[in-house]
Amino acid sequence: MKLPTGLNNLVEFLQRLPGVGPKSALRMAFYLLQTSDSFNEELAKTIGDLKKNVFVCSECFSVSDEEICEVCKDNNRNKQLICVVERADDVIIIESLGGFNGIYHVLGGAINPLNHIGPDDLRMTELLERVKRYDVSEVIVATNLSLEGEATALYIKSKVQSLKVEKFEGVKVTRIGTGLPMGADLGYADMATLQRAMEGRREI
Amino acid sequence: MKLPTGLNNLVEFLQRLPGVGPKSALRMAFYLLQTSDSFNEELAKTIGDLKKNVFVCSECFSVSDEEICEVCKDNNRNKQLICVVERADDVIIIESLGGFNGIYHVLGGAINPLNHIGPDDLRMTELLERVKRYDVSEVIVATNLSLEGEATALYIKSKVQSLKVEKFEGVKVTRIGTGLPMGADLGYADMATLQRAMEGRREI
Repeated sequence: MKLPTGLNNLVEFLQRLPGVGPKSALRMAFYLLQTSDSFNEELAKTIGDLKKNVFVCSECFSVSDEEICEVCKDNNRNKQLICVVERADDVIIIESLGGFNGIYHVLGGAINPLNHIGPDDLRMTELLERVKRYDVSEVIVATNLSLEGEATALYIKSKVQSLKVEKFEGVKVTRIGTGLPMGADLGYADMATLQRAMEGRREI
Repeated sequence: MKLPTGLNNLVEFLQRLPGVGPKSALRMAFYLLQTSDSFNEELAKTIGDLKKNVFVCSECFSVSDEEICEVCKDNNRNKQLICVVERADDVIIIESLGGFNGIYHVLGGAINPLNHIGPDDLRMTELLERVKRYDVSEVIVATNLSLEGEATALYIKSKVQSLKVEKFEGVKVTRIGTGLPMGADLGYADMATLQRAMEGRREI
């Protein structure tokens, strides 16, 4: 039995969303078929207008309701401390932790030769310009702990440190801590993570 | 940091879909923010027009592109064998198995006194009318294996068997097999399931 066309199209669209397989797409589609008309209308409108209503901050390239996001506008933020992330949603995640009082910079990805993404495809020039403009003292590189994220971190380090020539003091470049996740069992950890955990040990 | 309003609304809508939590809603929303404009427009249109384009079959109450679904229209289907399910998506799931050559009847739920759903809220009258009209020989009750599904199965049995009075021969009412799922480990099975598995034993 084939699904009605409208339903089938919806299932195919939903399957393209991250983390949605055929079965969950079908469940969602049937939910939408049985829910109130107003819910579907508002959801459709929100999706259709999404890009019109959400701006990319012209400073840090995070998402915002306005041209400049609230983090970049906030004068109580420490602009000498900049946290570099791959994607705008990483900013939301770090902000949800609370406690970070610096600013952000969204690169727009990581260096990935296999996918033809080089340093020029990332917002590197903008990053270096902001490091100079704000007289940044520390760049925290919070790219993913993947091969691509690590390569990008090393590239950022070399670029930021080349600014030394122009400045009297160097800019500190740090990487987010690596090691075992909380609640982890030593016996199940992979060797690379365990080695990083040993290297990243701290006094208690 | 608060999410841009458009994004926040979308995350809240997506979280109401079955199986979608806050984190996956956020991932989906950011995916939609970064995907092509045409994808979002078509997805929005498909959701908005869903109920206009998908019909409920006036025979079995399953979903269809037309007023009568292809199962009910198919003259090769055995109309004396009717499979009763709670929801329209159950029909899709059973059809995807292949091999069932009867017809379906979607009840629209199960008896659930806590949620004030009684037999009158289900499509019982329509079921009994179809059983009589097609001179049905067997009603397979494929409601869920929950308390509500079981109660509904017993109710259907009593109602269908009361048709005996009007007919010379009775209608057989069967329930889908219960027992351990394939690949299950006896040691981890719950007692109720294990008991059902013993009762439902078959010769090999």
